[in-house]
Amino acid sequence: MTLEQYIALQQKRVDSALDALVPPESQDPAIIHRAMRYSLFAGGKRIRPLLAIASAQAVADHPAGIESAACALELIHTYSLIHDDLPALDNDDLRRGRATCHKVFGDAIAILAGDALLTLAFEVLSKLDLDAARRILLVRELATAAGTVGGMIGGQVNDLQGEGQPPTAPLLESIHRAKTGALLRASVRLGAIYAGASPEQLGALTRYGEHAGLAFQIVDDVLDVEQPSEALGKTAGKDARQQKITFPAVYGLQRSREMAEAERCAAHLALAPFGERALRLKQLADLIVRRSA
Amino acid sequence: MTLEQYIALQQKRVDSALDALVPPESQDPAIIHRAMRYSLFAGGKRIRPLLAIASAQAVADHPAGIESAACALELIHTYSLIHDDLPALDNDDLRRGRATCHKVFGDAIAILAGDALLTLAFEVLSKLDLDAARRILLVRELATAAGTVGGMIGGQVNDLQGEGQPPTAPLLESIHRAKTGALLRASVRLGAIYAGASPEQLGALTRYGEHAGLAFQIVDDVLDVEQPSEALGKTAGKDARQQKITFPAVYGLQRSREMAEAERCAAHLALAPFGERALRLKQLADLIVRRSA
Repeated sequence: MTLEQYIALQQKRVDSALDALVPPESQDPAIIHRAMRYSLFAGGKRIRPLLAIASAQAVADHPAGIESAACALELIHTYSLIHDDLPALDNDDLRRGRATCHKVFGDAIAILAGDALLTLAFEVLSKLDLDAARRILLVRELATAAGTVGGMIGGQVNDLQGEGQPPTAPLLESIHRAKTGALLRASVRLGAIYAGASPEQLGALTRYGEHAGLAFQIVDDVLDVEQPSEALGKTAGKDARQQKITFPAVYGLQRSREMAEAERCAAHLALAPFGERALRLKQLADLIVRRSA
Repeated sequence: MTLEQYIALQQKRVDSALDALVPPESQDPAIIHRAMRYSLFAGGKRIRPLLAIASAQAVADHPAGIESAACALELIHTYSLIHDDLPALDNDDLRRGRATCHKVFGDAIAILAGDALLTLAFEVLSKLDLDAARRILLVRELATAAGTVGGMIGGQVNDLQGEGQPPTAPLLESIHRAKTGALLRASVRLGAIYAGASPEQLGALTRYGEHAGLAFQIVDDVLDVEQPSEALGKTAGKDARQQKITFPAVYGLQRSREMAEAERCAAHLALAPFGERALRLKQLADLIVRRSA
């Protein structure tokens, strides 16, 4: 199977699982389920679920049901996009190539849809067909990664507070390690824990997740400078306009690209103990660095 | 111990536990932790934690650590207040007698503080000193009660959608069963599950929670009509101005008061199997109906 075929297959599994886990649009109150589904099924690349599935497959041969666990990551990611796009935060009209949730459903429903996706992520984990000890580990992993101390919300706050401040390397690192890094790292760890990884395996996969996550954010910052909005599916060039602290702002474009490449190599290196089992994880790291949107 | 002494003691235990579970104001990013604590420690009555503790005590003699589990309920309740008060939703300036979170910290931080409290609720449950099977049951209970299908967010959406519509009894019931009822019911159930209730005990306590929850909402609606803002610590008379569907709007004040009293009696009746062990739960139901704020 080629990488493209593999990705298409996993995306399909994830989308089917999401469709089964999120209440249908006909379920009362319909508008909130329509809003949740509008943002969830907007053509996202499902990077976080893909990392979780590939990580689980590096540990176990056929980790049945992993796609349902992986959905929790996409629910958290999507909630964070909806809230980030609100007028009070990044005030963005375009996401994944179409109008943002609050532009379609209004601010009130967008806030509640985000809350609902966040809540549903934990409901999904609590109901997995998996022993209780592992389920509770997954809840803990996801809650910590999405939280304020070194987690996604903490990074988002630092990002907001950093606007207009002098772009320094330590500030940049602390923002991105938390804002996008924590959830990408957690994606890899969630798959590993789901599949019953040993402490050594979990350690190696965590290092992979940290390097791949940093590579992802560097490339994201670079693409915001280099690509037009149409290619990105979201408003390009916003970082500079909002005086965000980004890798190109601190290091310049050329150096940023080199750093992303270095993180890609480090991610590969961390996978050495897995040999061929880690093929898909390696390919995903390559894809993260070489993507154009 | 009088009821007042009992309540003061439990509130103190809950506040100590909250203080230990929420990152300190000095923790980076400080502003989000300040905002979370500002709303958490604003003199809330801790009704939900009190119900959980009293429920656990009806089942077991000394349910050690129950106050930490009960904190998860207060975290969820407080997040919902912060988001409800936002300009995009109820647009309220006053809560628990002081300026609402977004009036002090701005809309962006208020949105993120709500998200953070919601996320922390599940982190807290995941880290309880309790067997994994019960912890995961608590996660499931709380996530379902806070969600869109018959849960708190669903009720909030129906409440928003109901503004200005003709106030009918079925609409009223569906809104309140979800909006406040689900979390109050879950409070009682969380305590019961924590303490290892039998299915029969859980069933009886669930019925108690449903009746006490409905009584709470009826009285809340009545007080919004009868009491001045100063007594409530929040803007009074808003329901009528926003054309909300309330018990006084559907049944009138006198009939609403009688209904609250009937729910109180039904709550007591559900507790019959517990005898003296349910003293505090009975007293809390009385207090819910007879409070003036």
